[in-house]
Amino acid sequence: MSPPGIAHTPAPPYYAVIFTSLRTDADGGYGRMAERMVELAAQQPGFLGVESARDAGGLGITVSYWESEEAIARWKANAQHRVAQEAGRKTWYSDYQLRVAKVEREYGKSAA
Amino acid sequence: MSPPGIAHTPAPPYYAVIFTSLRTDADGGYGRMAERMVELAAQQPGFLGVESARDAGGLGITVSYWESEEAIARWKANAQHRVAQEAGRKTWYSDYQLRVAKVEREYGKSAA
Repeated sequence: MSPPGIAHTPAPPYYAVIFTSLRTDADGGYGRMAERMVELAAQQPGFLGVESARDAGGLGITVSYWESEEAIARWKANAQHRVAQEAGRKTWYSDYQLRVAKVEREYGKSAA
Repeated sequence: MSPPGIAHTPAPPYYAVIFTSLRTDADGGYGRMAERMVELAAQQPGFLGVESARDAGGLGITVSYWESEEAIARWKANAQHRVAQEAGRKTWYSDYQLRVAKVEREYGKSAA
């Protein structure tokens, strides 16, 4: 993956998975696993991009973009990803919310 | 607004505005304006919640949630918000992307 930045997505429609989370104080390899999951997601069919930011206050937002609902379902079921999801629920996140949304339109700085 | 956290949104469907931005070094009242815009957004009809995180690296993601496309259009046209949008384009953001998406489903930590 390239360094943190704004994802270059194709023209809509496509899908966004908005994952908002609050971290616990537990580390236990969180950073390594988070990086690995981004690398792995990027190798999945239908992956279009990802954007991620975590505030000093502990709130994190990761938005991944996908061609279809099917691509999202396959990624959710990925074996390595399932291990990470379980560790997230048990150890790393005190709370989270995941929303699946269909991107209908978009514009950037040069076309506002 | 309450402190940074995960938004408590109603059952889907509803809309999300995903605003991803890279900040310039220019300040010029950015923090105050950003806070004011969150307060003002929260007073608009159809507003459902907001989540925001900015990474140490400068990438920020703000997701605001709305009842309808009409509520989003009204907020975009709000006079004070238009002044902030213009300052954002000219001064505060070196780049940004705004995506409007329809949230179709969601789940949280207790119902994954």
